[in-house]
Amino acid sequence: MEITSVNNDLVKETAKLQQKKYRDKKFLLEGYKAIEGAYESGIEIDYVFVLTQKADEYKFLGDKVILTNEAVLKKISTTDSAPEAVGVAIKREYNTDMLKKSQKVVLLENIKDAGNLGTILRTSVAFGADAVILYGDSVDLYNPKCVRSAVGNLWKIPVFEIKDFGELEKTFEGFNRVATLPRAKKYLKDYKSQLPCLVMFGSEADGLSDKLINFATDSVKIEMAEGVESLNLSVSCAVVLYQIFL
Amino acid sequence: MEITSVNNDLVKETAKLQQKKYRDKKFLLEGYKAIEGAYESGIEIDYVFVLTQKADEYKFLGDKVILTNEAVLKKISTTDSAPEAVGVAIKREYNTDMLKKSQKVVLLENIKDAGNLGTILRTSVAFGADAVILYGDSVDLYNPKCVRSAVGNLWKIPVFEIKDFGELEKTFEGFNRVATLPRAKKYLKDYKSQLPCLVMFGSEADGLSDKLINFATDSVKIEMAEGVESLNLSVSCAVVLYQIFL
Repeated sequence: MEITSVNNDLVKETAKLQQKKYRDKKFLLEGYKAIEGAYESGIEIDYVFVLTQKADEYKFLGDKVILTNEAVLKKISTTDSAPEAVGVAIKREYNTDMLKKSQKVVLLENIKDAGNLGTILRTSVAFGADAVILYGDSVDLYNPKCVRSAVGNLWKIPVFEIKDFGELEKTFEGFNRVATLPRAKKYLKDYKSQLPCLVMFGSEADGLSDKLINFATDSVKIEMAEGVESLNLSVSCAVVLYQIFL
Repeated sequence: MEITSVNNDLVKETAKLQQKKYRDKKFLLEGYKAIEGAYESGIEIDYVFVLTQKADEYKFLGDKVILTNEAVLKKISTTDSAPEAVGVAIKREYNTDMLKKSQKVVLLENIKDAGNLGTILRTSVAFGADAVILYGDSVDLYNPKCVRSAVGNLWKIPVFEIKDFGELEKTFEGFNRVATLPRAKKYLKDYKSQLPCLVMFGSEADGLSDKLINFATDSVKIEMAEGVESLNLSVSCAVVLYQIFL
């Protein structure tokens, strides 16, 4: 199939996925790495617009490929320079039952930065987390910037949105629950973790809420030089997860 | 003083600092945090354009303040939404002699992402590094995105650009020189460092060059789950520096 008009209905439909409100079931994959990563992880791919001259590299997608031109790719992509291919994939659903059997879970409260979220997912996969919880009011996991920052790792780990504190409480009742806080009493290097473990991070702007601080069974802080207020959130996560999970 | 015309010469002069080629001596500070952080670290501030209604908050700058409006701030700033103040500061020069007496130095080769560089500077300060070396072809330290990502830490640590391998070799002759490499034989957790120590990181795209790998006296890799190719560069730096420097 070939579609070269920016006014084509499917092109318009695809461009809508740039906005969160249209991403209830499907989301965008921009560029080869994202498409290939999703495909290899068994994410269901609906269709992929591919620049005609790059078609050979996308043969693994069989009849999902729609040949197109730069104008269409520019219209449907969210990056400044249009990638050679943009795909549409179906969101994967996970069953929350798996959480109760998990050993290593990461919780992010009110995370707003899509780039940070993507990077944290990539790190969580690398350091062996079983799942990630987005608690409170969080940026959309399928935000294209998050998909890019995760560099193919978005689909390697189950991510759950939990809005309700009661549900959180029930799910992680039996867990060792660690809050990462600048005012914690224990230093990270001295901390010995026990599984199952839920490690909780607040947003860079506001830190963890009192509700989650009270919910924690323990708290740790990262050792830092004097006069440094804080670390970038994805940096804090990386250091803490490396110490606790590995 | 008050300047409200976007065609004013000083406004035009200031806007030029958005481009690297004009940043040989001066650079931009965008927003309160950057301006206050630079001021407190003793960075010489030339002048600061401040939104008239915010003038009270910038009294610490004395006669460096130039009152202005949103149109001017929009013209001179690099962010999508104009900040309430944009300042111009003088680059601080460091003497390379201090390097030979340093204990903990970070080297970044060919780093291209300004956001990553800013985050790594912030982390380097937090974890007690004495200096950072930009080796090879690197993004400009005074790129506004880097200034923002460093969140006030850019001026808390000396940063040196070294282009010449001979100079690098001479400066770090007596150092323990650690390459971070995916194919290193030692795992980070098993690594015991000795000071003085130079820790070297390559770019995300290309890793460390053979020249620097040969220059290393040791190499380490970060433990990772199977199937994960790599970590974000600022994440790798954070984990390695935390382990080696703290």
